[in-house]
Amino acid sequence: MIVILKQHPETEKVNQLLHQLEEWGLSHHYSQGTLTTIIGLIGDTSKVDVDMLQANDIVETVKRVSEPYKAANRKFHPEDTVIDFGNVKIGGGHFGVIAGPCSVETPEQVIAVAKAVKQSGANFLRGGAFKPRTSPYAFQGLRAEGLELLMEARKETGLPIVSEIMSLEHLDLFADVDFIQVGARNMQNFELLKQLGHSGKPILLKRGLANTLEEFLMSAEYIMAGGNENVVLCERGIRTFETMTRNTLDISAIPMLKHLSHLPVIVDPSHATGIPWLVEPLSKAAIAAGADGVMIEVHNDPKKALCDGAQSLTPAQFDDTMKTVKRYMQFEEKIFG
Amino acid sequence: MIVILKQHPETEKVNQLLHQLEEWGLSHHYSQGTLTTIIGLIGDTSKVDVDMLQANDIVETVKRVSEPYKAANRKFHPEDTVIDFGNVKIGGGHFGVIAGPCSVETPEQVIAVAKAVKQSGANFLRGGAFKPRTSPYAFQGLRAEGLELLMEARKETGLPIVSEIMSLEHLDLFADVDFIQVGARNMQNFELLKQLGHSGKPILLKRGLANTLEEFLMSAEYIMAGGNENVVLCERGIRTFETMTRNTLDISAIPMLKHLSHLPVIVDPSHATGIPWLVEPLSKAAIAAGADGVMIEVHNDPKKALCDGAQSLTPAQFDDTMKTVKRYMQFEEKIFG
Amino acid sequence: MIVILKQHPETEKVNQLLHQLEEWGLSHHYSQGTLTTIIGLIGDTSKVDVDMLQANDIVETVKRVSEPYKAANRKFHPEDTVIDFGNVKIGGGHFGVIAGPCSVETPEQVIAVAKAVKQSGANFLRGGAFKPRTSPYAFQGLRAEGLELLMEARKETGLPIVSEIMSLEHLDLFADVDFIQVGARNMQNFELLKQLGHSGKPILLKRGLANTLEEFLMSAEYIMAGGNENVVLCERGIRTFETMTRNTLDISAIPMLKHLSHLPVIVDPSHATGIPWLVEPLSKAAIAAGADGVMIEVHNDPKKALCDGAQSLTPAQFDDTMKTVKRYMQFEEKIFG
Amino acid sequence: MIVILKQHPETEKVNQLLHQLEEWGLSHHYSQGTLTTIIGLIGDTSKVDVDMLQANDIVETVKRVSEPYKAANRKFHPEDTVIDFGNVKIGGGHFGVIAGPCSVETPEQVIAVAKAVKQSGANFLRGGAFKPRTSPYAFQGLRAEGLELLMEARKETGLPIVSEIMSLEHLDLFADVDFIQVGARNMQNFELLKQLGHSGKPILLKRGLANTLEEFLMSAEYIMAGGNENVVLCERGIRTFETMTRNTLDISAIPMLKHLSHLPVIVDPSHATGIPWLVEPLSKAAIAAGADGVMIEVHNDPKKALCDGAQSLTPAQFDDTMKTVKRYMQFEEKIFG
Repeated sequence: MIVILKQHPETEKVNQLLHQLEEWGLSHHYSQGTLTTIIGLIGDTSKVDVDMLQANDIVETVKRVSEPYKAANRKFHPEDTVIDFGNVKIGGGHFGVIAGPCSVETPEQVIAVAKAVKQSGANFLRGGAFKPRTSPYAFQGLRAEGLELLMEARKETGLPIVSEIMSLEHLDLFADVDFIQVGARNMQNFELLKQLGHSGKPILLKRGLANTLEEFLMSAEYIMAGGNENVVLCERGIRTFETMTRNTLDISAIPMLKHLSHLPVIVDPSHATGIPWLVEPLSKAAIAAGADGVMIEVHNDPKKALCDGAQSLTPAQFDDTMKTVKRYMQFEEKIFG
Repeated sequence: MIVILKQHPETEKVNQLLHQLEEWGLSHHYSQGTLTTIIGLIGDTSKVDVDMLQANDIVETVKRVSEPYKAANRKFHPEDTVIDFGNVKIGGGHFGVIAGPCSVETPEQVIAVAKAVKQSGANFLRGGAFKPRTSPYAFQGLRAEGLELLMEARKETGLPIVSEIMSLEHLDLFADVDFIQVGARNMQNFELLKQLGHSGKPILLKRGLANTLEEFLMSAEYIMAGGNENVVLCERGIRTFETMTRNTLDISAIPMLKHLSHLPVIVDPSHATGIPWLVEPLSKAAIAAGADGVMIEVHNDPKKALCDGAQSLTPAQFDDTMKTVKRYMQFEEKIFG
Repeated sequence: MIVILKQHPETEKVNQLLHQLEEWGLSHHYSQGTLTTIIGLIGDTSKVDVDMLQANDIVETVKRVSEPYKAANRKFHPEDTVIDFGNVKIGGGHFGVIAGPCSVETPEQVIAVAKAVKQSGANFLRGGAFKPRTSPYAFQGLRAEGLELLMEARKETGLPIVSEIMSLEHLDLFADVDFIQVGARNMQNFELLKQLGHSGKPILLKRGLANTLEEFLMSAEYIMAGGNENVVLCERGIRTFETMTRNTLDISAIPMLKHLSHLPVIVDPSHATGIPWLVEPLSKAAIAAGADGVMIEVHNDPKKALCDGAQSLTPAQFDDTMKTVKRYMQFEEKIFG
Repeated sequence: MIVILKQHPETEKVNQLLHQLEEWGLSHHYSQGTLTTIIGLIGDTSKVDVDMLQANDIVETVKRVSEPYKAANRKFHPEDTVIDFGNVKIGGGHFGVIAGPCSVETPEQVIAVAKAVKQSGANFLRGGAFKPRTSPYAFQGLRAEGLELLMEARKETGLPIVSEIMSLEHLDLFADVDFIQVGARNMQNFELLKQLGHSGKPILLKRGLANTLEEFLMSAEYIMAGGNENVVLCERGIRTFETMTRNTLDISAIPMLKHLSHLPVIVDPSHATGIPWLVEPLSKAAIAAGADGVMIEVHNDPKKALCDGAQSLTPAQFDDTMKTVKRYMQFEEKIFG
């Protein structure tokens, strides 16, 4: 960590600051330039409160040099993390294909979609039971009943299930969900992340609409700091000025996250753009960029979907997409699941 | 609502669509252009699911014409909402000044700050008990104990208190908090918003870092749809490419929100930029743009603040700022509180 | 085009507006809703001035339904445009690899790099002679002399050359440049675009840092409206809040631009992130998403490059990258050049 | 400037780097931490090429500590710059009001508007002769003829005139224009900026849609480095995800630019939002935040304006706005012009 002082700091205040740093167990290099004075901090700065340093009136600015995350950091954990779901894995060359409807609606719908996506090659079934909708007047999901329908579909197909949790008071309802999703809007719901850190469940953490990669990794760190290391990161598009696609898929995030962290990284091309015919080219691009999986919305009748129908593929379209995805997986030598 | 069809739609599918619209109780005007065919929907479209229409394969795009929010909409409620806190009010010409530390730390600190800001003219005391910190290793707030310290400070000074709720499982702890804040990161924590809608408490809803004004009003609508109309909107800066300030204060949001909605709108210049010397010019600008209040961070010893010290004013700086704020309030003929 | 009127417009003003529309040769459908009145315009609206309609005080808003670009629009020109450079082509399955240094520095440098990139498989040589640098104190390029060095390198290697024009007063100097680049900062330098429209030269148009895809296509339209249809679009990253990469590569832009337009689309992974080791994964992703080419910075000694050295590959790194690019081209059945 | 090295750099490469720094006339402090090694550079680093350092393979990152602009920097020029136009001034307490139509259309229009805005208190007349329009099919301005009409209006009213230059080949035509505007789209048209640096004319430099404040000041530096110190900065809104206003006025830019630089700063509330009724509250906010002037679009018949009519005020609306502006100027003790 580097502390840059304002021009001509008072000697007494500098000494107080240096003294404080020593009390925190940090060595320092003091370096006075023509225009600027800088202090380099040496030692473990992960507990140093940047805000407190910044508030010192002789300090111009403070710059972190090392990453503020530890558990998620590849520097301290060079091997890829592999998340094990029993008969399926994600990470370390294992590729996961998560598919299913935006929201669970009826027993018929979820079982039909589950069978279809399994047939086409998906190895996880997704389905929303609790739905974060912008409007209070929109369909909010079947809630507990939705989770039960997913579990029935799992019984039918053997596919592990993925569903989004929106509040920690529903945690008990998710006891039997294989893979718990934290949505983009809750990426910084820190109380929820802490509780999930005490669970042993694999967590699918989606990047927030306007969150940096560092913030994304810090949210993973919240879960891991509680003892749960089973975190999968999901890039799902960020908010930019472009309006032709709903969000902007940050494709560079895939190799960058895998460089910075050992956690698996998957991509959600359905939410990234909201446009069904973009799912295939973006799935290909995601694999080419090194993703460990994709999550794709599939609905048996998109026209009648109770949410996000416009971005869902039909089972037939998903089947076509999977043919491409499989060729790419093979080309990239990914293990299926 | 306007539905724009793709080129050369099949007649049968068009008829199916028109039939569906009639079933939803909507009249329509069908208008065939050289290049495009459009259908104008007539009637109450607030319950129409845009996604479902968009998923129809003859539909190119769907455009809303009327706003998706009702309770928060000034069209249906032309008078300014005034929130009444007993001896203080916000809205309808009443100006609120909320001040206090980012986080509550010790009894001495909170009481000292409370007395100082009251003396300078604040009419609310803010203080964080539950703190949403990016890092799991940073100070997380005194939690329940912090709320108690705030209540003691209220007893000393008579100032109503404002504090942020981070999870609905803490709702009971906030039973005696006068004004409950929902932070930017929870603006779309819809389960929390719904519960707050069943409370009668005034809610201070902060705009999310990357949320549009329409989404902001829809989150207010969540609270109001539950029956709680005591919502104050707070503009606190949005995330942009500019890095010199922590966020970008969207000053236009003030007159725009007041145009679209009857709810009071306040501004948080401390979080908007993270730079203490910008608090005064931005407070002036906020009043000039029509704000109903400001929320300012004040700490007795910013250098030792356990969070966001760098952006806090000292009590002396706050006192100076208040002199300016009061002159502006007078000039703009705002009632104090 | 759809005109949405304000609530309760005066009949006389409505009649004036309808009369004006008829004078412009447009039919209209008038459709009065419970809350809103809309007018659908029928006919060729490409010449209608949206601003003028918007300024009418009974008009709430105006929404375009058809695209404002014609020459660049795939609807009116379904086949892929193929740009022919003699022995090399771009578009319609022909894949272009443009490589070379950010700026031309010495005869030795440019010839060494040209030979190296040709050997590795590039089919165009790029090199900056006029450099758009943020700082007036930074190296501004060798200018006319730089163009001459590029032409010598072309003589040596046979590679057609690509270089950026920064001002129309330099147009004569570019008479013998094969492929003229318009940089991101000049994407809306409309006077320059107009002049390039009168030239027959292939133009490499880069997307502006904060320009939408529609604006990008409108800038291509400026060139095409002048009679020059040889335009190649280049996605090179947009500006967002993320700071870990210099820009955010908008990968969805590739399939979207190819859907909307018949023009070839290439990708510049070097400028998109500014990080050399991201060039390979992003080149792969670009091909997977359907790009017609890539543009990659290569410098024989990045440490001593006079500009953007940090993002350049060495010839050896480029050679490795090309092995991957070629495998992907083969997999995607792209014709080389 | 601070150079942060990668972990475990080779000693020989470090020595080479330190040697290179010495050759550039820089002293350095070398500071080896547990995890990181940093080198602090001491001396004049304004000529150091950050890219070249960054490209060194033992370098992790390079951080600037001092600002890269000199001529525009308040540190080296503490007094406010005052631009003198003869009988009118801007800066140092002198407030400029620039008003007029988006584009010059007819002699009658420009003279009528000029007289009206002068009457209401404007002290500059603006009018576009060369118009940067997104579409090649939109009205492009009267060009040379438009400048002549402005000069006639100046003769009638005595108001100095402001008009936008789009290309340096038009420079001669602007010889008699009092105040030359560089538009947002040309903020980084560096060839144009350089030429304007050789002119003695006052330049009105508008901030680019997606340019940081540092880039904005660097563009001012381009003009100043050529010897022309008469630069006025204009904040006109930046591009963000919010769509309700055309751009987002960055109000914090005003105090921040005035803190960093001695140049005058004005605000264009018309372009910032594109909404006429926001001009008044935003003008008030601009003055409150410390602006040295405002630029407002006024058209005698916005409905028939050939460009941007929707955002123009009528002369009557402008007159009302000026009543407010004058009260605020008085309150803030600004000198008129």
